[in-house]
Amino acid sequence: MSKYMSKRHANLTAYVPGEQPQDKKYVKLNTNESPFPPSPLAQRLARQAAGTIELYCDPECGALVKIAAEKFGVSSDEILFTNGSDEILDFAFAAFCDENTPAVFPDITYGFYPVFATRNGVPYHEIPLKEDLTVDVRDYLGVKGTVFIANPNAPTGIALPASDIEKIVASDPSRVVVVDEAYVDFGGESVLPLIKKYDNLLVTQTFSKSRSLAGGRLGMGFASAALIADLKKIKYSFNPYNVNSMTAAAGIGALLDEEYFKTNAETIIKTREDAVLALDALGFTSLPTKANFIFAKHAKLSGRSVYSALKDKGVLVRYFDKDRLQDYVRITVGSAEDMRILTEMLADIIGERK
Amino acid sequence: MSKYMSKRHANLTAYVPGEQPQDKKYVKLNTNESPFPPSPLAQRLARQAAGTIELYCDPECGALVKIAAEKFGVSSDEILFTNGSDEILDFAFAAFCDENTPAVFPDITYGFYPVFATRNGVPYHEIPLKEDLTVDVRDYLGVKGTVFIANPNAPTGIALPASDIEKIVASDPSRVVVVDEAYVDFGGESVLPLIKKYDNLLVTQTFSKSRSLAGGRLGMGFASAALIADLKKIKYSFNPYNVNSMTAAAGIGALLDEEYFKTNAETIIKTREDAVLALDALGFTSLPTKANFIFAKHAKLSGRSVYSALKDKGVLVRYFDKDRLQDYVRITVGSAEDMRILTEMLADIIGERK
Repeated sequence: MSKYMSKRHANLTAYVPGEQPQDKKYVKLNTNESPFPPSPLAQRLARQAAGTIELYCDPECGALVKIAAEKFGVSSDEILFTNGSDEILDFAFAAFCDENTPAVFPDITYGFYPVFATRNGVPYHEIPLKEDLTVDVRDYLGVKGTVFIANPNAPTGIALPASDIEKIVASDPSRVVVVDEAYVDFGGESVLPLIKKYDNLLVTQTFSKSRSLAGGRLGMGFASAALIADLKKIKYSFNPYNVNSMTAAAGIGALLDEEYFKTNAETIIKTREDAVLALDALGFTSLPTKANFIFAKHAKLSGRSVYSALKDKGVLVRYFDKDRLQDYVRITVGSAEDMRILTEMLADIIGERK
Repeated sequence: MSKYMSKRHANLTAYVPGEQPQDKKYVKLNTNESPFPPSPLAQRLARQAAGTIELYCDPECGALVKIAAEKFGVSSDEILFTNGSDEILDFAFAAFCDENTPAVFPDITYGFYPVFATRNGVPYHEIPLKEDLTVDVRDYLGVKGTVFIANPNAPTGIALPASDIEKIVASDPSRVVVVDEAYVDFGGESVLPLIKKYDNLLVTQTFSKSRSLAGGRLGMGFASAALIADLKKIKYSFNPYNVNSMTAAAGIGALLDEEYFKTNAETIIKTREDAVLALDALGFTSLPTKANFIFAKHAKLSGRSVYSALKDKGVLVRYFDKDRLQDYVRITVGSAEDMRILTEMLADIIGERK
């Protein structure tokens, strides 16, 4: 850190994304990417857009918003697109938290939430998950502050039913509830329709997982027009052209190609169910997941040792060196072939340790 | 604004980008875009990248950084790429300003600076330009706070020589000077080499103007490794994957295709000189510009009336309704044909008013 760094940011501890080692080719099951390429239509539209990027992109993302509004049954002014969903989450910390309105979220969830809070200079309050790593909805009923709930949660994969989320939202209309649905398309239940009923609900989703656009960076949020206007105020005070033309075009393709999206999500769910059974057979226990990853622990091996041994064998998974998570590894659901290799390597590792 | 909006952001007045009307086809000379498409190599690499965006982009932009380091003669840890240069400017306000370190910039400059300051909750101090709309270097020698200087300045187009910028940087090594070189490639003098000599200098540039990537969104900054590390701390606490894969690939192409870049910049300079003469002949006076735009006023017409009359005739220029600027319009240097149409329309307008 230089001597010039602002004191209020001196103690920032940045989020650490999953590793992207370049030393050799890995079976990459550590950052919850899709094993499928972007939809052919998304690719085609992005390529077409590349020819005219000497012109600024549309700061309103008009064409993309129009298609999303139709698809999700909301108005154009109830949607905002951002440079990945991290950006809209950060905007929500900026817009809806302050010194008197802390952010509130589970102690085990997306690791970026405390970083967003710190960067925005707002206090946060972590509520412990239950012993079984589930969210106790009662903890959030009427809790003061802006609630951030990842549903399904990360890195557990455990989902709450929409009715539980609704209880949290309805319990106190004086505060905002942000539901981060990054992983909702793999069997979870979206509360998106509830934005019509509650003006204190923001639902965020991403194109990085189910729509195969992680490297394109596209996130979106749905809320009442008033909440979206607040978020736009942040956007237009920071980076009006935050979504580039190629990504906006890819997003249009990804939304229009519903069949491709559905088929891929179904395939991932099926692959996940098969992988859970294979892991069971190897002595792993996994949490009930509705995400495109499996959070699993082995009866005899620590999370770290599974992670390291797999990395040695060319398979990357994610390990969290954090209290209550140290027994586990988080395994992205890749292709069936990826999961076959994973299972084979795990069988080897377990065999070697006997 | 909703009742949920954080008080500290309630009074944000967002930056208003140049209009992008969709009602008809305009000769668009209002947002300083390039009249040339992206380099064919930039397009090709971006299109290629579109096929694998199911994978996250490299948060370090490793390949792009490597090429930029070679090209600009700096180390990899002296460069940062961002989602347009607005993003790195915002990061600089976050990293290098606080309640005791105000931002300092001219009263007439890039209109986003006060917005960045307000959004980041830091005070700012505006120093009036001289009567002739030039920067008085003496005003900045030893001034307390983090200095932001656009060079060439916007919307005037007037450039300071590198030696003047160096005086400002050298006058007080205890504070950071940010030199925003968005328009430097059209005849200005970059202070980029000075980052080796001064550890309190940050130089930002953009791919939006001279490299024809406005809609791709790519900005970059050069500074001592310590300053870049501070900015990375902000980036990794906000949006680690801020530059998408397609844009990073386009950036590589734009940097490698030096010939295309040079030819286009020279063409724009030549077109600008011709346009200045044509405007002179029509009774306009323009400021001496080193940017890809001309800031001009007419002896008998207000800036607003020129703007409106041109818009009616299908030519968009930019008008700033701000003290000392109301006589002027800012005209982007487009293609020779764009400028021919502009001149023709202006001649008509002036003829009609006689």
